Amino acid sequence: MTNLNVRVELTQNPKAKTPEDKLGFGTVFTDHLFLMDWDAEQGWHDARVVPYQNLQLDPSVGALHYGQAIFEGLKAYNNGGKVYLFRPEKNFERLNKSADRLSLPQLDEKFALEALKLFVSVDRSWVPTTPGTSLYLRPLMFNSEVGLGVHPAKKVTYLVMASPVGAYFTAGLKPMRLFVEDEYVRAAVGGVGFAKTAGNYAASLKGQLKAEEFGCQQCLWLDAKEHRYVEEGGAMNVFFKINGEYYTPALTGSILPGVTRDSMLQLLRDRGEKVHEARLDVNDLFAKAKTGELEEMFCTGTAAVVTPVGTLVRVVNHETGEKEEVAINGGETGEATKSLYEELVNLQLGLGEDRHGWLVEVCDAE
Amino acid sequence: MTNLNVRVELTQNPKAKTPEDKLGFGTVFTDHLFLMDWDAEQGWHDARVVPYQNLQLDPSVGALHYGQAIFEGLKAYNNGGKVYLFRPEKNFERLNKSADRLSLPQLDEKFALEALKLFVSVDRSWVPTTPGTSLYLRPLMFNSEVGLGVHPAKKVTYLVMASPVGAYFTAGLKPMRLFVEDEYVRAAVGGVGFAKTAGNYAASLKGQLKAEEFGCQQCLWLDAKEHRYVEEGGAMNVFFKINGEYYTPALTGSILPGVTRDSMLQLLRDRGEKVHEARLDVNDLFAKAKTGELEEMFCTGTAAVVTPVGTLVRVVNHETGEKEEVAINGGETGEATKSLYEELVNLQLGLGEDRHGWLVEVCDAE
Ligand SMILES: Cc1ncc(COP(=O)(O)O)c(C=O)c1O
Ligand SMILES: Cc1ncc(COP(=O)(O)O)c(C=O)c1O
Repeated sequence: MTNLNVRVELTQNPKAKTPEDKLGFGTVFTDHLFLMDWDAEQGWHDARVVPYQNLQLDPSVGALHYGQAIFEGLKAYNNGGKVYLFRPEKNFERLNKSADRLSLPQLDEKFALEALKLFVSVDRSWVPTTPGTSLYLRPLMFNSEVGLGVHPAKKVTYLVMASPVGAYFTAGLKPMRLFVEDEYVRAAVGGVGFAKTAGNYAASLKGQLKAEEFGCQQCLWLDAKEHRYVEEGGAMNVFFKINGEYYTPALTGSILPGVTRDSMLQLLRDRGEKVHEARLDVNDLFAKAKTGELEEMFCTGTAAVVTPVGTLVRVVNHETGEKEEVAINGGETGEATKSLYEELVNLQLGLGEDRHGWLVEVCDAE
Repeated sequence: MTNLNVRVELTQNPKAKTPEDKLGFGTVFTDHLFLMDWDAEQGWHDARVVPYQNLQLDPSVGALHYGQAIFEGLKAYNNGGKVYLFRPEKNFERLNKSADRLSLPQLDEKFALEALKLFVSVDRSWVPTTPGTSLYLRPLMFNSEVGLGVHPAKKVTYLVMASPVGAYFTAGLKPMRLFVEDEYVRAAVGGVGFAKTAGNYAASLKGQLKAEEFGCQQCLWLDAKEHRYVEEGGAMNVFFKINGEYYTPALTGSILPGVTRDSMLQLLRDRGEKVHEARLDVNDLFAKAKTGELEEMFCTGTAAVVTPVGTLVRVVNHETGEKEEVAINGGETGEATKSLYEELVNLQLGLGEDRHGWLVEVCDAE
């Protein structure tokens, strides 16, 4: 890392740390930020680790008005004495795909990874150790050009912030209720659904609130064209175990290609399971839930890890508001879900054999 | 306006003004900002006019990561001694519709208008006087809550900034070339296309770049489902004159309901023209352009006012990249387009009779 050329300015006022059993998601931030600037003339420049601080933004910057912003989410784990990242190359690969779709500049993925490692090692004391906790890392790239013209950014800011987090869903492995959203749409083919871009999340809030009105934790999005094929959850991909085989929606362009989804597909194949990336009709899933052929359902994501789904809820008559609920596996966490959760968490914590070289060592823990 | 309760802090360092013939779009800003905060406990509070300044934002604010931001665009005109706004109530009405879809708090529309008038009157010396220029006003509302959780903002900032602008398209009434985009999608029904929200514009940049590669100024978006029905231009609605009657795409939920579109429909009806809000098949439009039945085409928008379209370009074979171009009215600005442009501009400048009460007086000019 000697060639990195990252200026490091350490804080003079380290913050007090929140007790690990009080950590939520994304509310506590570490002592530093990684920052780097881009403009058309100089390319990326002025990479630096600086004390955590407010950004000074002109009120006209493109990120605020036109949403030209993309991000990533990954975690650092304290594996008994060492700090590891889980498949970080996949996140930078995806960040560059998002950048391409949103007309933002490409990052050098190798540099970005080395810089991330440096940043994490500076804030290594913030990687929590309690099982279920981790240091959530949030790379963010946005248009920081001054001016109201609608055009691709001529000035861009890249930053990484870090937040020690507890479990994303406070209920742990308690099965979720998902609300099937058939009016609001998250993303359409030809749009930006496959990119991890700011606007996708704003667009999803209304559906999320509706899901909560129906007593659900999250919504299950359907395709924009027929409102019939399952896409993904709020910030999670979805898997189904049907008659002993595994299914997840194919990547059609409107779904975020989750890193956890990819890892899960690999774990299932390693187990010799039959896995299908397919078009999944929600009506068919309701029918199969009733007969018991739909044996288990779970969501995957960096924040959510593996979260079981116990109940699907949908509106069957929009005039009367009549709804239908089906339980999956009697509303309980299935055996397969549980064992996949454990296998993935163990891998992330360095307790399983790292067959695919998914762990990237950062530094010794504090 | 005595009850307004807006704190006014005037700048001590007024900026030098850019000569009016050097004004572009949204690059020069006035001496002040209007700002107001919202949180769940207090509602809207601390309305203030302050010297133009950078915003201090925590790097985790929801607007940057999740695009929870909406905006408006309207203009103040110097009508020989007085400053007027054009239909500003429509903008606040639309802002509240955007707020509803994006799970942001509602504004008191009457208060927002009075506050806007106060703000404009503070910066009245910035309203340019050269024909074709105006003071562009940009209300912006965004999630300014600290934290990475994906949920509706518990802290929100509303601001208005102002920018003296020249003509949006530097070429003036020179007919545009529009590129028919049949791969990328701007918005889908069930999504956020009808809202003036940040993410819609980021999502449109890639199509805009493609249009430029095809020698066009803007793209013409099609519907997300069939890639066949015309929706709108980059930041403009579209109108067609076919066999002597007028057509514009109906508001299906994926199109921004333009204030200028609404004004244009009224002007046409006032003239006794037949106007249709309809589903317009792009294939049909190409066919009718060839026969000459499609007599004129133009775009409408606050920034673009009325801009003629002289040529439509599309790719007819995506394998070979083969394209097709059709001219409308021989590529020239049509008579109707020209006269509608003049009627609208005259109305905005207070030179026509204000039949519908569209002008709102702000203050005396400097
Ligand atoms: C919309 C969406 N889908 C799926 C995921 C899961 O992706 P990953 O497994 O890479 O965290 C996320 C979270 O990153 C997401 O935001
Ligand atoms: C996407 C889009 N369509 C249409 C318009 C035209 O709307 P208005 O006439 O209110 O300016 C705008 C500009 O505001 C826009 O951004």
